Amino acid sequence: MSRKVTIALDAMGGDRGPAVVVPAALATLEKDDSVNLILVGLADVLEQVERQTTGKYGKRLKFRAATEVVGMDEHPGDVLRHKKDSSLRVAIELVKTAEADACVSSGNTGALMATARYVLKTLPGIDRPAIISAVPGLKSPTFMLDIGANVGCTADHLVQFALMGSVIAAGILDIEKPRVGLLNIGEEDIKGNEVIREAGNLLSHSGLNYQGFVEGDGIFHADVDVVVSDGLVGNVAIKTMEGVAGLIGSFLREEFRRSSLRRLQGIAANAALDALRARLDARRYNGASLVGLNGVVLKSHGGADQLAFETAVQTAIVEARKGVPVRIGELLGKQSRECIRA
Amino acid sequence: MSRKVTIALDAMGGDRGPAVVVPAALATLEKDDSVNLILVGLADVLEQVERQTTGKYGKRLKFRAATEVVGMDEHPGDVLRHKKDSSLRVAIELVKTAEADACVSSGNTGALMATARYVLKTLPGIDRPAIISAVPGLKSPTFMLDIGANVGCTADHLVQFALMGSVIAAGILDIEKPRVGLLNIGEEDIKGNEVIREAGNLLSHSGLNYQGFVEGDGIFHADVDVVVSDGLVGNVAIKTMEGVAGLIGSFLREEFRRSSLRRLQGIAANAALDALRARLDARRYNGASLVGLNGVVLKSHGGADQLAFETAVQTAIVEARKGVPVRIGELLGKQSRECIRA
Repeated sequence: MSRKVTIALDAMGGDRGPAVVVPAALATLEKDDSVNLILVGLADVLEQVERQTTGKYGKRLKFRAATEVVGMDEHPGDVLRHKKDSSLRVAIELVKTAEADACVSSGNTGALMATARYVLKTLPGIDRPAIISAVPGLKSPTFMLDIGANVGCTADHLVQFALMGSVIAAGILDIEKPRVGLLNIGEEDIKGNEVIREAGNLLSHSGLNYQGFVEGDGIFHADVDVVVSDGLVGNVAIKTMEGVAGLIGSFLREEFRRSSLRRLQGIAANAALDALRARLDARRYNGASLVGLNGVVLKSHGGADQLAFETAVQTAIVEARKGVPVRIGELLGKQSRECIRA
Repeated sequence: MSRKVTIALDAMGGDRGPAVVVPAALATLEKDDSVNLILVGLADVLEQVERQTTGKYGKRLKFRAATEVVGMDEHPGDVLRHKKDSSLRVAIELVKTAEADACVSSGNTGALMATARYVLKTLPGIDRPAIISAVPGLKSPTFMLDIGANVGCTADHLVQFALMGSVIAAGILDIEKPRVGLLNIGEEDIKGNEVIREAGNLLSHSGLNYQGFVEGDGIFHADVDVVVSDGLVGNVAIKTMEGVAGLIGSFLREEFRRSSLRRLQGIAANAALDALRARLDARRYNGASLVGLNGVVLKSHGGADQLAFETAVQTAIVEARKGVPVRIGELLGKQSRECIRA
C-alpha cells in the first residue's frame, strides 16, 4: 500500500473556487484511500460540504476555516501584510506545521509564491524558488523551469533550477537520472549570453545528467526530461506553446465547419481528433510546482476545472510521497560535498 | 503596372542549392514580368541554366559568376575574411552597387548577416540590424523581431526594432499604422526586466502605434501586428512554435494510423487536414528579412524547397518595391526631429 499522505486544499482559489475544488476533493477521496484531505475555506462553504458528505469520509476529510479570501488581482505584498487568515495562507501553514504533506491552490500565483516563501522559507542552498511545470513531449512529458517566478537569473540560479528540476522529474517520471538541457538560442557552446554559457559550464561539472543547450523546438523532442531557463524566457516559451496549440485548434474547427461535407468528414474524424485533444489537453498537465521551498506547494491554473484540479492534487500527492523537498536538500548536500572534495 | 525590380539570387545557398533556386527563379520570371533576376553562382552552374533557358527570358535573367561557395557550418568571421568571391557575398554586392534592388540567399545565417552588415552597412540611427519573420496568426500574420541576430539588447535597440518592424509590417500587410507589442512575462506595467520596462516607456512616447506588453500566447491573437523582443527570447519563441506545430503534426499522424478504421477516417478528413497544413505551412512564411541595413536582404530557410524559396523571393520583391530601407530612414529622421521638438 502507498504511504498515507495528507493534502491541504485551498477551497476558495481560482475563478470558480469551491465549485471546482470540492468535487475534485471528493473524487480524489473516492479514488485513493491512502490520501487524506484538509479542506480550507470560509466557514459557510465548509459547513455546506460537511452537510453534503455527512461524515462519509470520517477522518479522511478534515475542515479548517479561514476568514479571508485572496482575490486574483491582489498585489502579493498587500496579501502578505493584510490577509493573514486567508484560505491560501492557512493551507500553506498546514504544510509548515506538518499537519499536511502538501497543499494545492488555484489562487493568485504571485500571492501564493510570496506567502509560501514567507511561511515555509526556501531550502538551504536555494536562493530563489522556481515554478516548474510539465509540458507534452513526443514520448514523455518534459519539465520546464523557471516558467515565471524569476526574471534576471544568475548562472548559479540556473544550476539550482537544474537540480530541483532533476528531483521533480525523477520523482514524477520515476527515472534515475533525468536528462537536463539549458534553453538557448542555439546548440553550439558559443551561443547565448554569458549567464547561460556559464551555467552550461557549471552544469557540465555538476554530476547532473546535463545534455547541453536545447533550442525551443528541442523541448518536445525526446532528448531531455528537464529544460532550464530564466523565468522570462521560460514563461514566453510556455505561453507561446499555449498560443500555437490554441491557434491550431481554431484553424481545425474552422476547416471542419467550412461546408456540410467538411462537417461530415469532421464527424467521421471525431475519434482521432478527440484522442489528439486528450493528448494535448492542458488539464492533463495542470499543476505547476513551487519548488525550492521547505514543503510541497502546487499551483493549479486559475481557470482549472475539476479534472484539471484533480491532476494538480495528484502531482502534489506524488511529490509528497517522493519527499521532493528532502530529496532536493540531499542532492544539494551531495553536490556541495563533491565541490569541497574537488 | 508594378514598378520593375531586379532581385539577385544566391544560387548556391541552402541544403540543395541550384536544385531549388533555379526552378524557383524560372517560376518567378514566368509569374511576374515586372521582375528581373540576377542569378549568382559557380560558372558551370550558370552555364547549365543558360543552356537550359536558351535566352528565353532575354535581359530579364542575368548571370553573375562567383568562384566560391559558403558552407552552412562555416564561421561568419572566416567567411568575411577569406571568401570574398562567394556567391553569397557577390549577391549582396549587387545590392550595394544598385544593380539589384534586393537579394535572397538560403545560405548560412551568421555569414549572411556578417557579410551584409560589412558590405551594406547599417542605416544611420540603427545600432544593430535584426532578423524579422512573419508567423501565422488568427486573422493575419504577425511580424516578430529580433528572432536571433542580437542577444542582450538595450531598450534603445528594442525601440529601433519596433520602428523597423512597423515599416516591414506596413509594407507587407499594406496597413497604415501597424500595432506594436513588446514580448514580456506579463501584461502589467511592472512586469519583466528593466530593459523591457524602459523600452515600453520609450515606445509609449514614440509616435508608433504601441499597444503595450504581450505574452507568448498574444503573438497569435489579432491584437498586434509586430512583436518586439531580444533575439534570444524571440528565437526561443519562434523555435517553440515550430516544435509545438511539429508535435501536434506527429500526434495527428499517430492518431490517424491507430487502426484501419482510423485510417479511413483520416482519408475522409484529408481535405480539411490538408487545408490546415496549408495554413500552417512554414513554406508560406519562409523568408526572414535582415532589417536595418542599407539594402534589402532576405534569408530563406536552408532547407527551403521551391515553393518556400519563391515565397522569400516574393517578400524581397515587396520590400524592394516599398523601399523598406528608405522608409526606415525617413521614420528614423521623423522621430529624431520630433524628439528635438519635444
